[in-house]
Amino acid sequence: MRDEITDDELDRQKELYVPFTEAVRALVDATIRTEVDDDEVRAVQAEVEALTERLRRRQLAGAYGVRFSSNGRGRPWGNPVVGIRNPAAPPVLVERDPAGKAWASFHLGAAFEGPPGLVHGGVSAMVLDQLLGEATGAGGKPGMTGTLTLRYRRGTPLGDLRAEAWIERSEGIKTWARGHLMDADGVTVEAEGLFILPRWARERTEPENPRYFE
Amino acid sequence: MRDEITDDELDRQKELYVPFTEAVRALVDATIRTEVDDDEVRAVQAEVEALTERLRRRQLAGAYGVRFSSNGRGRPWGNPVVGIRNPAAPPVLVERDPAGKAWASFHLGAAFEGPPGLVHGGVSAMVLDQLLGEATGAGGKPGMTGTLTLRYRRGTPLGDLRAEAWIERSEGIKTWARGHLMDADGVTVEAEGLFILPRWARERTEPENPRYFE
Repeated sequence: MRDEITDDELDRQKELYVPFTEAVRALVDATIRTEVDDDEVRAVQAEVEALTERLRRRQLAGAYGVRFSSNGRGRPWGNPVVGIRNPAAPPVLVERDPAGKAWASFHLGAAFEGPPGLVHGGVSAMVLDQLLGEATGAGGKPGMTGTLTLRYRRGTPLGDLRAEAWIERSEGIKTWARGHLMDADGVTVEAEGLFILPRWARERTEPENPRYFE
Repeated sequence: MRDEITDDELDRQKELYVPFTEAVRALVDATIRTEVDDDEVRAVQAEVEALTERLRRRQLAGAYGVRFSSNGRGRPWGNPVVGIRNPAAPPVLVERDPAGKAWASFHLGAAFEGPPGLVHGGVSAMVLDQLLGEATGAGGKPGMTGTLTLRYRRGTPLGDLRAEAWIERSEGIKTWARGHLMDADGVTVEAEGLFILPRWARERTEPENPRYFE
């Protein structure tokens, strides 16, 4: 979807929604970890329900989608990995190089736990899928995930992490990418994937053609 | 971690936390989709911050972990796929068969969107990782994910979905499982994985030995 907003309007929206979403993200963390009395939990629940009702008074009919500004930049703000309007996203803020590289440093807390103290294996897969897709997009070879293979070398501790991805090679609409997740001691999970530009995107013209599809 | 709670206490906790977490989950959805005025967003943000502060007055020092009740049942309530205390989880409520099968029907909304209207490829990977792990655990062959391969046949629409997984074969501490994600029209994503029982778990005794590790 394309909505013709200016860079100023984009900045205004970020200024409004980033701290708001961050506040709800902190509430998600507190919801998992709280040990307050039952009555207090119930009281907070009633207030949360009232707030949700206020937010729903005017809302999108469905999911957020990916909006495109007049400058062609995509805004995947509902995305569960990078979405700055999604309180369930870490969010991972990705840096890119047009040579087909993408990387990010980020923090994963209680909401991303699998085995005690460790990142859920599926969360590692989710983040790496996004990063590999970002690398292919950064290199001008965007695509939807065709296959993805993860190798778990050891458990990934919750906390400060880094992910890196890069294009391995590309043939027509197919692009192969690799990447890994790391903690301070090195690589914990390796990933490789095949990304394919879908037909509906091939038939579109820039700049509406998304940079990536995850 | 083992805490000696009775079945009654377990039921009491579920009765308290399931609707509370569901309320915060709805707030997450509304946060992504709301279009109310800026002033109202800021007003709701201030109230959310106050609620978080109330919940944090007494809270776990870290993440939730996996608690084990006196009956040996695990409570992975913070888990990002199945955690009934995690507002970022769908949650996927898994059914199991001791023959080594696991399946679940669930709904994925705005918080799980990748390409417009479709489930994020990494979310599909995350759910399937969990389901394959549940299948190995159900069959008495729990393990942590060693490798995981996903094949994306077509886009998975947001909405009502189903996932199924089963043990393919097992040799000592290694178990291979397969599974898929489906919409009403059939399979959208296929998965296969190798699960390995980690050393620390091999050295433990039942019932503290977890049923699965994701």
